[in-house]
Amino acid sequence: MQLAIIGTIAFDTLKTPFGARADCLGGTATYASTAAAFFTKPGIVSVVGSDFPQEHVRYLESKADLAGLQRAKAKTFRWSGEYAYDMNEAKTLDTQLNALLEFSGAVPEAFRSAPFVFLGNTAPALQLRALKQFDAPRFVLLDTMNHWIENERDALLKAIAAVDGFICNEWEARQLFDTPNLVQAAKAAQKLGPSLVIIKKGEHGALVFHEGVFAAPGYPLETVVDPTGSGDTFAGGLMGFLASVGAPAPKAVRQGVVYGSILASYNAEGFGLERLRTVTGADVTARYAAFQKLVEF
Amino acid sequence: MQLAIIGTIAFDTLKTPFGARADCLGGTATYASTAAAFFTKPGIVSVVGSDFPQEHVRYLESKADLAGLQRAKAKTFRWSGEYAYDMNEAKTLDTQLNALLEFSGAVPEAFRSAPFVFLGNTAPALQLRALKQFDAPRFVLLDTMNHWIENERDALLKAIAAVDGFICNEWEARQLFDTPNLVQAAKAAQKLGPSLVIIKKGEHGALVFHEGVFAAPGYPLETVVDPTGSGDTFAGGLMGFLASVGAPAPKAVRQGVVYGSILASYNAEGFGLERLRTVTGADVTARYAAFQKLVEF
Repeated sequence: MQLAIIGTIAFDTLKTPFGARADCLGGTATYASTAAAFFTKPGIVSVVGSDFPQEHVRYLESKADLAGLQRAKAKTFRWSGEYAYDMNEAKTLDTQLNALLEFSGAVPEAFRSAPFVFLGNTAPALQLRALKQFDAPRFVLLDTMNHWIENERDALLKAIAAVDGFICNEWEARQLFDTPNLVQAAKAAQKLGPSLVIIKKGEHGALVFHEGVFAAPGYPLETVVDPTGSGDTFAGGLMGFLASVGAPAPKAVRQGVVYGSILASYNAEGFGLERLRTVTGADVTARYAAFQKLVEF
Repeated sequence: MQLAIIGTIAFDTLKTPFGARADCLGGTATYASTAAAFFTKPGIVSVVGSDFPQEHVRYLESKADLAGLQRAKAKTFRWSGEYAYDMNEAKTLDTQLNALLEFSGAVPEAFRSAPFVFLGNTAPALQLRALKQFDAPRFVLLDTMNHWIENERDALLKAIAAVDGFICNEWEARQLFDTPNLVQAAKAAQKLGPSLVIIKKGEHGALVFHEGVFAAPGYPLETVVDPTGSGDTFAGGLMGFLASVGAPAPKAVRQGVVYGSILASYNAEGFGLERLRTVTGADVTARYAAFQKLVEF
């Protein structure tokens, strides 16, 4: 296995100006592995509860190796969020950690030699505990969120120092490094250790700092139905592509970022996984060509 | 003359986290003509007051034809603004219209055959009055601001319908067309008439709708000292380039947008005109190459 993904599996209840859905299959590992599976079959390290239906297990099995999927006694983690008119950020309405409280982060024997590891957003201590179980990964990407910046800052900085790539959104970058300037924030992050720093800017794309700067555009969507999971889809697409290429060379990173952006843009066109799970290789190829036209001058 | 610029000339008093300056030479026509002069010598249609010093006249004469510069009895237009920590938008502290109240918008005979016209942000009725004096311009670009969207909406929509290109920032686009989605806003603008719609997104670059979409990145600056005039610099650079090329073909528009972005990025590196007026052709060429590296994948 080339890529291990450590992250949540959730039931999401979503509300946007375009409608609502209850109890969708979601979570970091779900979105990231769906995206990564376009390029490689990843392994998932995650936890689900006693209420997790076989139908969802079958879906995840079609995308990933589930040897690292822990079964908890509690119910599956639940998240509920609502997007306002501008679709920029979800307002969390409810979080029920449930099974996450039992999550050991144990990496199965068969995953430990994976050269690529994605540490999805969770407690920095748990990210480090998972990371230590890998033999000698070639490239580790770590994601985080404002909650850990505010409550586990020191642990988070330690975790960032232990990885090769750090990804967060623009507001998190500004908050973590106490500067409004994204170039300064990225340089501060690189000083901690990672050679790759990706700052996601939602509809405005991403800034990628890695031997020079790559300004990845956002794909101009006329209709954004539900952005839930787009960040994880982006990271999963990038890591899946890198794992399939085998090395995180600068050019591969840029191409992987574009693939991640493409999958994230499709993901936002439907509720939950509805659109992403129907995307074909031909769709990805078509939008890759569109991205090239989008930036040429 | 290939390009006429209709816009204000001002004394700006600026405050940013990096310092302050009083009574800088500023205004739309000043920034736009300084940028355009990299490619062509534009003509300025504007107004200054009785207090406007000869030193500033000499500066503007070095960039533009001043046959359309009206001298008012009142003092020169004054604007005072302050930028907070994030440098995103100026808070206007004071506006003294002064000479602007006497501005006739009269276009001198020698300017009327100009094929390219930039109608800088001002009252839509005045923009239309100025436009009607031109013989048959090949390409007219119109800028606006939230004030006119809120107070002169119908007149503004009429003015937009009369031009070839419309430029505004992302918040103005959302406000004017009552949608959070920039693609929808651009389509609505194009429906009114303009074949070119440019939505400026500050540090995130610009979206350019014109036979396809061009996502121009913002140049990742580590230090933004003062963004005053960057929008006018962008438009002036674009229009100067198009005027020098002679036709607004899609490829020329994209290249002009990049030149405008380059000049705007230099402009933000210093207070008022301080940095922009020292930029050389070699600086522009260097950053053009950097823009190419910024987007290649």
